[in-house]
Parts: sequence; structure tokens; C-alpha cells
Amino acid sequence: MNPDLTITDVRLTPILVADPPLLNTQGVHQPYTPRLIIEVVTAGGLGGVGETYGDSKYLELARPFAKKLTGRQVSDLNGLFVAADEVVVDQARVRDQVDVGGLRGVQTADKLRLSVVSGFEVACLDALGKTLGLPVHALLGGKVRDVVEYSGYLFYKWAGHPEGVACEKDDWGAAVDPAGVVEQARKFTERYGFRSFKLKGGVFPPDEEIAAVRALAEAFPGHPLRLDPNGAWSVETSLRVAEELGDVLEYLEDPALGTSAMAEVAARTDVPLATNMCVTTFAEIQEALKQGAVQVVLSDHHYWGGLRNTRELAAICRTFGVGVSMHSNTHLGISLAAMTHVASTVPGLHHACDSHYPWQSEDVLTERLTFEDGSVKVSDAPGLGVELDRDRLEFLHRRWLDDDGSLRDRDDAAAMRVADPEWVTPAVPRW
Amino acid sequence: MNPDLTITDVRLTPILVADPPLLNTQGVHQPYTPRLIIEVVTAGGLGGVGETYGDSKYLELARPFAKKLTGRQVSDLNGLFVAADEVVVDQARVRDQVDVGGLRGVQTADKLRLSVVSGFEVACLDALGKTLGLPVHALLGGKVRDVVEYSGYLFYKWAGHPEGVACEKDDWGAAVDPAGVVEQARKFTERYGFRSFKLKGGVFPPDEEIAAVRALAEAFPGHPLRLDPNGAWSVETSLRVAEELGDVLEYLEDPALGTSAMAEVAARTDVPLATNMCVTTFAEIQEALKQGAVQVVLSDHHYWGGLRNTRELAAICRTFGVGVSMHSNTHLGISLAAMTHVASTVPGLHHACDSHYPWQSEDVLTERLTFEDGSVKVSDAPGLGVELDRDRLEFLHRRWLDDDGSLRDRDDAAAMRVADPEWVTPAVPRW
Repeated sequence: MNPDLTITDVRLTPILVADPPLLNTQGVHQPYTPRLIIEVVTAGGLGGVGETYGDSKYLELARPFAKKLTGRQVSDLNGLFVAADEVVVDQARVRDQVDVGGLRGVQTADKLRLSVVSGFEVACLDALGKTLGLPVHALLGGKVRDVVEYSGYLFYKWAGHPEGVACEKDDWGAAVDPAGVVEQARKFTERYGFRSFKLKGGVFPPDEEIAAVRALAEAFPGHPLRLDPNGAWSVETSLRVAEELGDVLEYLEDPALGTSAMAEVAARTDVPLATNMCVTTFAEIQEALKQGAVQVVLSDHHYWGGLRNTRELAAICRTFGVGVSMHSNTHLGISLAAMTHVASTVPGLHHACDSHYPWQSEDVLTERLTFEDGSVKVSDAPGLGVELDRDRLEFLHRRWLDDDGSLRDRDDAAAMRVADPEWVTPAVPRW
Repeated sequence: MNPDLTITDVRLTPILVADPPLLNTQGVHQPYTPRLIIEVVTAGGLGGVGETYGDSKYLELARPFAKKLTGRQVSDLNGLFVAADEVVVDQARVRDQVDVGGLRGVQTADKLRLSVVSGFEVACLDALGKTLGLPVHALLGGKVRDVVEYSGYLFYKWAGHPEGVACEKDDWGAAVDPAGVVEQARKFTERYGFRSFKLKGGVFPPDEEIAAVRALAEAFPGHPLRLDPNGAWSVETSLRVAEELGDVLEYLEDPALGTSAMAEVAARTDVPLATNMCVTTFAEIQEALKQGAVQVVLSDHHYWGGLRNTRELAAICRTFGVGVSMHSNTHLGISLAAMTHVASTVPGLHHACDSHYPWQSEDVLTERLTFEDGSVKVSDAPGLGVELDRDRLEFLHRRWLDDDGSLRDRDDAAAMRVADPEWVTPAVPRW
């Protein structure tokens, strides 16, 4: 065989997808969140799909980048990074913008580039796999497990978005106290079979969140639990929480902001610290490991520049005796499939991966991915094993087109101000 | 397409190939050196080839390992490591044996396993590439350069093996002093166009080797030069050589033995230190980087477990600001093709790669690989882009079969004793 792998077209479709009123330390999720769907078309006729962040600054970079790809080989994945470096990023604009609710550490042009590349890399891998008749995991050296375990990603949550705001309804109800969190966890277990639970914290004073985790530990004895306040706590508060929850926590995720603060916490507790905020690029690894700031790196192929970079990150963690698992931000089924493929190939994946997917009632696929016993089965179909639903894609794109611009850039603080006009993004440490 | 990638057969062919009387600190190369040629056959009909060390202890591991591969998918490269771990290695035997002339750092079962896996991984990649119609570099994410530069690998050398020893003749002549080394470098330049030169040292007292490098610097002004005594020097000697040659050396390779000694040297000189002895496995990286023992890691896909692991090593080096290039031991064209494919995909390859290939007058290919302007062109043909010459393979295998066992395990000290019965492997540090 001699497959024609030349890229003949790249299509970018920004969409807005429904998002429930999930709370975090910055504010609350907006009723719709932007994502970018990337289609790579090859001369051989079989295209591939990828997704990544859809905020304006990602689109601004994705558009000139997409133009560079036509005529290249879809197998030329190393070349994607070379091409991305050639796209000029407006540094000032990068710094001025809020990045996914300010929950992703320091904003840099490099992070922005890699987040864009990741969506294209996944689309190329999907196209390559479809053309060659191989699943994406085989393009990454083959799966070493048949299912990938995910954790139930618990959020403090309102029953609905503020009155008067256009939104889709959800059936999860409110969760603003320990009982609500336990109830949410029960629903997660019933619907998806998750065994591990992660609670997004940094929303209420630490004692309330400690109580919620305690309630989870009582309701689900022996189940791995995690708490993630997105860096909202001081070193002292972090240590107090670690002390109080040490017997039930699998790890504490980003209790304090930045490598130095994390290192200070790590030095004074035995509770492992996980991060997706102070180690989010290869450039941040050396200092974090030197300071002993983290024991588990939560990789995210969107941050790190794709599935192959995720594997390299995992190799680094393995070499330096640091655990690895997977972070998630709001995403659709394309990314869940991509996460599952890469996770299936990583030896020594130490913890169940995070995924927002259960919170996303909308998708762009003809068939949703499903969780069984808390896990997603690794697909052996060619490519990612997912199929784009063009009608749904068009519907969600139409929503993006019809938006007046207010939801095209995720801003959790702005969403919170709809309910509380006095709201300002809390200074860190908040507690 | 739906290619049948099932492995139906694995063939192992140990061979003996001619090797000139190249000197190193342990002794001299034997007239023939063992290599193992690995053929992986798939149901689709297109097989692949790999090569690795051929000493008995590698064969003993390769045979049971080969049996485990039948029925597996040739794309299941991550699974090779899982399968290798299941093969029992006789630890006592590993420790008792001399490893490629004692030039490879501490001997471990893990190193042995990875060296065996590497040959199979390359064979699988070759088979996969041929089946899919893709060059091996495309299976590694695609080349980022069209040619890979190599250095001229200079050796102190006798004109011929000791009288009475059966051997192939070579036309390189002797090189046992500065003039001889410069003459050899000239031949290398004329024949292959190399710009960089590496001299294998540790053979003569340091002052003689300093004089040889000085002579090279005068004959080839501005050309990158390296000296590699295979850890034969004390820290003080290493520092004296660094001081005397600092103005002409690109780097000093393994001047002293072991991470601590290397770190001591590194702390007291500005000349970068390279290694293929104190960092030869992932497990050795952390300590070496912590101690600042090396500035350039010379990867070798045979040591590290294949081309994909070599890329992971390169990613680690990139992340920690350490340079990367490629080491070589005696090898044939299959491995040169493999080295060229992986090197073509590694961003920031900092130095010309080493290769013994010009010293190997015999090969198992229908067509030898060639150097032009010191570089090998990256093949875009499916797989490695090489073809096995079955008659040559059979001829070299016959030599192995006919050997009385004395050459089936490389032993540079034994070869030296043929010329000098009093020879014992020098204690380290030798100077």
C-alpha cells in the first residue's frame, strides 16, 4: 500500500456547548462554553477530528496555523511544532486575557501554541489511523490496558444558572453542602460506576470542604478521594487540610498556588500533592522536581501539545519517580476518546483519570462514549473510533455564530457577576 | 485497509562480522564480532529486520523472548517491554560476563533486556512501516531533517590483527601516534566527508592522546573534536586533559568512570562532558542530572530499548537542558538505518552522531548505506529502507556456526592477549 496522506483541507468549527452551573474558586461556569472542532481532510479521503479550547485567542492562532498544514503529510506530527512556532502570537494579548477561568497557572504564548497544536495532532492521528486501519492507540505503540478508569468529578453546583439566563437544563440538582456532594457522588456511581471521587474545592471556606470530603469518606469507605481548590489556599491552610484529611485523601491537588508554595506544603506533609497548575509545560518540570513540589503530575493533552507529548511527560515522570494521571477541563467526546487512547498506552498510570465529560449533556458525535464500572473501553476501531454528527456540529456552531460575543471567551467571574454583581475574582490565597 | 499485523514467525540469526584491530582501554577488537540479526514475519507477508548484540547472553534471552512474540501484533511496541519483563534473566550469569569489552558501565539484567528488546523493536517498526507503506521515521512522528550528520570515529589501530589470526584485511593501515591519527582522519574525510572527529582514547598515556588531538586540531582547524578514554582517567587526569584541550574540544566523553567522578570533573571544568557509560538507563538519569555529571547524553537505541525509548530519552534531555547525541558500538547497516531514522525525528540533536559503520567492511544488506558530506540521507522508502542479502547472512551465520566458541562473546582483553600474553584488563583509573 502507498496511502496518500497529504492534507488537502483543514476545517475549524467553533461551537458553544451547554455547561452546568459548576462552581470553582474563580466563579461559576457560564451556561455555554466555547470549544473548537478541528477537521483534517486528506487526499486519501479519510479525515480526522480533534477538539481543543475555543476561546478567541485560540481561534486567532488556530486559523493561521490551519493554513500552514495544507499540503503537508498527516503523519508529520513532529513538524506540527515547527509550524506552530512560525505562527506569531501577540504576547500582550496573551497576558491580558483570562485563561479558562484563570485556572491554568501562568499564561504564556507557548502554552497557547501547544493547546492549539494538541487539537490538530489528535485530528491528524485520527486521520492517520483511519487511513491505515489502525486505532490511535496502535499509533502510540499499542494499548497496555483494555479499559481506562476515570474518577467521578464532583463540583459544588447550583440547581440552575441564574434566572433569566438562556441555558440547557440539567438533572443533577444543587450541591452546596456535604449532603449535596454525597448525593452527587451517589448519582455518579449509579450512572457511571466511578470508584474514585475528586471534589473541586476552593469554593467554600476550607472547613466546609473538609466536612464534604469527610462525608464522602463515610459514604464511600475505602474509595480514593481527592480535593482540588485550584491554589486557593495559603501554605498554612493547605497543611491544616492535609492534616485533617490525610487519612482519606489519595492526594491533594494544587492546594497552594505556584511551585514554591507547593514545595513548602510538600515538605511538611505526607499527603501526596498533585498538580495541573504549577507543572503545565515541559519548561516548568525541572524546577518543580528540584523543589520536590509535586508527587503526581496530572497531564492534559490539551496543555501539553497532544497525545505524543503526553507520553513523553509520562516518561519523564516515570524516570523521576513522580506519579502521573490525567487532568480534565470541560471537553467533549472527541477529547475523551483521545484521552482514553493515550492513557491506555502509558505504563504505570497511577490514578483514575479526571474527566468533565459526564457534565457535558451535548456532544458532536453520532454516539456518546460511555462509562462502565467507571471506565471507558479502549476502542480498537480505526482512528479515535468516533464519528462526527454534522447536524449537531452545525447546531452548536450556529449557537456560537448567534452569540453576541459575551460567551465566546470563557469567563467564570463574569458568569458569577450575573448572580452577584459585586463579585470580584478572589485574591490568592483566598483562605 | 485492514492490514494483518499478526506476527507469524521470528527468526534469529547470530553472525560473526569482520572487525579491524581497533584499540581501546580494555584491549583490542577481535577479528570477528558477534551480532544478532532478527527477522519478524507478519501474516501480511512483509517482514522486518533488526540487529543487536550477538553475544551468548543476549542470544539466551532473545530465544525465549522471540517465542513470546508469535501471535502478537507487530504494532504492539509498548507490549514488547511487558513481554521482556516476563523472560527470566540469570542474574549471576549477567554479573559474571564481560559486556562488550567492559565499555558499557555497570552490567544489569535490565540493560540486557532492553538491548535485546531494541533489536525486536526495530524489526517490528520495519515490518510495520513496510506493511503500511510508511518509512520508520513517519512511525516516529516524521523527520525534522533530511540528512543526519555523523562524526568520523577515529581509533588507535594496528595495521592488522596479530599474525596467525584468521581475519579479513583492511586498508586503513596503522594509527598509533598523532601522525597516524591525522592520516586516518584524512582518509575518513576523503571517503565520507566527515567534519567532526571523535578519537577513542584511553589507549596511550594521556600526553600522547593530547598530542593526537592537538595534531587533529592543527590539521582540521575549526572542526569539532572529541576524545573518549572510556573512563580510564582519574579526576585529576581528566581535569588536566580538559585544561590542555579545552580550546579545541567540543566535549570530553566519559573521562572518568561513574557518576560521582564525572560530577567532580564537571564541577571543575567548562569543557562539556558527554557520556554513554554513566547514563545508560532511565534509572541512572536522575542521579546524574542531580549531580550535574553530564552535559551531553549519548543515546544508543540498543542500550535504551529501541527507537521510541531513544525519543523519550531525548525528550528528557530537552526538558532538563542537557544536550543529546548518539553513541555507537560495532554495528551493521540495519542499525545505521535505524539510528538515522530516529535521529531524523529528534528536535535539537546537538552534535554529529557516532557510528562505527565505516569500520565494518561486511554487512548483511544488498546495498550498503553511504555517507555523503559526512551525512546519511534519511530514507523515505517503507520501513527502514534496507534489504537483507540472504546469501551474505547465511555466509556470516556459517562463520558463527563454524566458530569454536572463542569469538561468540566479544572480549577485547582476550584479543589483546593473543598479541601480549601478559595483558590483563587495566585497573581503573588507568592514569
